[in-house]
Amino acid sequence: MGKKEAKQSFVLKTPKGTKDWEGLDMVIRDKIFSTITQVFKRHGAVTIDTPVFELKDILAGKYGEDSKLIYDLADQGGEICSLRYDLTVPFARWLAQNSSVQSIKRYHIAKVYRRDQPAMSKGRMREFYQCDFDIAGVYDPMIPDAEILRITSEIFEALGWGGNYTIKINHRKILDGIFQVCGVPQDKIRMISSAVDKLDKSPWDVVRKEMTEEKGLDGEIADKIGEYVKLKGTRDVLDKLNSIEALQANESAKQGLADMTLLFSYLETFGVLDNISLDMSLARGLDYYTGVIYEVVTEGSAPPAASNVEGQKVQETGRKEKKEKKPAEDDDDRSNDPTIGVGSVAAGGRYDELVGMFSGKGQIPCVGISFGVDRIFSITKARMESEKAQQLRRTEVDAYVMAFGGKGFTGLLPERMEVAKSLWDADIKAEFLWKVKPKLPAQFKAAEQSGIPYGIILGEDELKAGKVSIKEMGLPEGHPEKNGVLVDKANLIPEMKQRLKQYEEKLASQLSGVSI
Amino acid sequence: MGKKEAKQSFVLKTPKGTKDWEGLDMVIRDKIFSTITQVFKRHGAVTIDTPVFELKDILAGKYGEDSKLIYDLADQGGEICSLRYDLTVPFARWLAQNSSVQSIKRYHIAKVYRRDQPAMSKGRMREFYQCDFDIAGVYDPMIPDAEILRITSEIFEALGWGGNYTIKINHRKILDGIFQVCGVPQDKIRMISSAVDKLDKSPWDVVRKEMTEEKGLDGEIADKIGEYVKLKGTRDVLDKLNSIEALQANESAKQGLADMTLLFSYLETFGVLDNISLDMSLARGLDYYTGVIYEVVTEGSAPPAASNVEGQKVQETGRKEKKEKKPAEDDDDRSNDPTIGVGSVAAGGRYDELVGMFSGKGQIPCVGISFGVDRIFSITKARMESEKAQQLRRTEVDAYVMAFGGKGFTGLLPERMEVAKSLWDADIKAEFLWKVKPKLPAQFKAAEQSGIPYGIILGEDELKAGKVSIKEMGLPEGHPEKNGVLVDKANLIPEMKQRLKQYEEKLASQLSGVSI
Repeated sequence: MGKKEAKQSFVLKTPKGTKDWEGLDMVIRDKIFSTITQVFKRHGAVTIDTPVFELKDILAGKYGEDSKLIYDLADQGGEICSLRYDLTVPFARWLAQNSSVQSIKRYHIAKVYRRDQPAMSKGRMREFYQCDFDIAGVYDPMIPDAEILRITSEIFEALGWGGNYTIKINHRKILDGIFQVCGVPQDKIRMISSAVDKLDKSPWDVVRKEMTEEKGLDGEIADKIGEYVKLKGTRDVLDKLNSIEALQANESAKQGLADMTLLFSYLETFGVLDNISLDMSLARGLDYYTGVIYEVVTEGSAPPAASNVEGQKVQETGRKEKKEKKPAEDDDDRSNDPTIGVGSVAAGGRYDELVGMFSGKGQIPCVGISFGVDRIFSITKARMESEKAQQLRRTEVDAYVMAFGGKGFTGLLPERMEVAKSLWDADIKAEFLWKVKPKLPAQFKAAEQSGIPYGIILGEDELKAGKVSIKEMGLPEGHPEKNGVLVDKANLIPEMKQRLKQYEEKLASQLSGVSI
Repeated sequence: MGKKEAKQSFVLKTPKGTKDWEGLDMVIRDKIFSTITQVFKRHGAVTIDTPVFELKDILAGKYGEDSKLIYDLADQGGEICSLRYDLTVPFARWLAQNSSVQSIKRYHIAKVYRRDQPAMSKGRMREFYQCDFDIAGVYDPMIPDAEILRITSEIFEALGWGGNYTIKINHRKILDGIFQVCGVPQDKIRMISSAVDKLDKSPWDVVRKEMTEEKGLDGEIADKIGEYVKLKGTRDVLDKLNSIEALQANESAKQGLADMTLLFSYLETFGVLDNISLDMSLARGLDYYTGVIYEVVTEGSAPPAASNVEGQKVQETGRKEKKEKKPAEDDDDRSNDPTIGVGSVAAGGRYDELVGMFSGKGQIPCVGISFGVDRIFSITKARMESEKAQQLRRTEVDAYVMAFGGKGFTGLLPERMEVAKSLWDADIKAEFLWKVKPKLPAQFKAAEQSGIPYGIILGEDELKAGKVSIKEMGLPEGHPEKNGVLVDKANLIPEMKQRLKQYEEKLASQLSGVSI
């Protein structure tokens, strides 16, 4: 490295739309990732790590006009590559490439890249995380679909969102059947479906206007649709739909309703019906869904001003919103509140024909979900701040080894090192101040800044008597153990293990019911 | 996504020099990462996640002629960016950018990118992992340096390599002092140092020839150097060096020896001296080291044919080897054995002046180490195969819920679902076959293929009596529990928890002493 070159000045920043993750944000994010991963593994999922860039041809023709948002690598000779745009296409490429794999449950939490106009305040980044879970393989109807929804429910329960989220579900075949029964011409079905999809952020009259004025649908047909898409509930809605003869007479609706009835019975067995809302206004824009579709919303969710932190969602609505943004929606831009402008926190569905596009051979039916981890992060962080929950610690250190002494104090460095070593040997996380003669306030400050729960304090006299002091940090004035408890040095490890166990239990009980 | 476009044919592969991580490799790799991370956290380290690409200017002028290996993003308007080449420069950028941070222990395990000629058989990839740990901040001499070596030792012990690795250490100031004392002209010191660095793969007479014939060093001076660089040992070597008056009279050597003497006392306290080899032939090529340098080698290590899986190492020797490759070294190319051609598995040192290059302001002294996780992976995998160690499981699933029955068998799907739900609720990892009427052999096969330790078997008669069967998979013929143990369905969870606890303990005792 030439020092001369390096001394040139340059702008010290990360590229536009990217950020460094650090400090408490990193701790919260890691906890979210590990919570989600634990649930995936509970259901036997494995992970596959694909390269951050793919051959450009693999991505080409997969994202319609959003292809312009793909980051290309420079042509430096050799293959032409692009950064991955999502995790779905690399997974489909992998499945097509590994034709011996006929079934898999895979999860993948990784960064994806979009050359979009970033809006940091709304969480729209150029580099952001996706978290996908997909089941590929031929199984009996609705069983994997039900397990995906069970997994979804387990994840939001594990995140501490119990009672505070709704899984909206619908079925493409029911929806298509409804459109057919209402009289939508076949060639307008996708177009009308995508108009319905906007009902989560626009009132019916706006959507109706789009159907009739922009898309030339007959007003009476639109009104019939309007009656259906109002339907929202659980078994009551399913029973109502099942009782409509016109739907039963429609092949698509009939199949979809049979699927949904089966799914409901499975969801009941899995104990997740309480959080389900069968919602006829849920349409999801992506063309490739072929069966059940779903989207998770949480309290405080608002119309998304931009959707790219929500995984697959961007492919359907993200760009459209940019082009068709209404003045009312621009209001979101004024807010830095991370929970504003955040719509769904997870979304997905069944896509039985996507892998065939890659392999050109047999289809592998798939059903999956994408968790909007950046949104989940923002909401979690905001809730933690508002609930003044137990402060998350920046590090996981259990003990800070300190020393003090009067005149002629040597610093007790070898003794502090030896105690730290014995703690590390026992897998207790420990630090000490890397100074030969540290001052006591500096040691306390270091322990407090990292939120370390225990100080282990060495004094020359105490050491001579074979004792050390364990001090729980942050005890109130007047607490009998405020100045620490003297223990035999030979018993330090069991003494610490016992305290740490109690501390973990206390922490766990404090945190139960609190997000993360 | 337009189906027409997508049906075009394309090559189904990952880009050159990249790979998908999947299956057992992924499981092994994750275990290595979590083992290493656990040690980092034990010492209070935090992680920082920087973007995968940086502004091109940040990387410019950092890698000398290896800059041609940097991957650039295409110029699609806006900032010009490049994929990160290592994790050190982004860390230095972050430190310089966050000037309020005066000290940090940070680790970072992430992919880096080099447009090199890939050699998959030797593990030289264009996308590969680095694992860096660095301590930045002003502390008393050698204390953080000692802790880095303690961490290094803990990691290789945790990986099960105990007794099977050596940490070679040296000090730039000792080495520079030796060169001065031997009479090397000041302007030839770095050049001669880089010749010495080749002693791990070339015999002395080859290195001597390079010094004298290529680099014009006086033969007598070379011979004096030859005496020093033979020195290799522990306290004996340190004592010998300390007793040489010429070195004590040299300012650089004197400082270096004082550091090393202090370091040895700290390493002894930390209990890691056993694995240390003070090695005067260790020089490390990177210009930016200013103090202690180290490199970890393991049994079966051989001269590296290519070094880019080893983190920072590539910056010093990777390219040079390519250009200066001797016929003898080419022999390595014939082998696909991942342990052949693998040199050091970790390397690092103190670099007190690097951050100043970025900030242009104050220096932040740093000491760090980079673990060659791809090499560690290859060696671990090869050892596991050769030791026929307990097979690592592809998934972590604890139980496979099955059903069987005679004529009129319904498949017991709701019952299997309900049992699976109760297992998930108790955080027991469980799967069942997503078929309405599964065949028993298919269920057994699924459980066996994933190495799942327990089957939970439902039969109609047993269920009526409130019983289910727990079957430990893979028991030998004739074992009393070969056909499973009938337990009360109401007691399934505690019964399983108890068995899983025993299973974990058995696994832990089998694995102790085995790599990973």
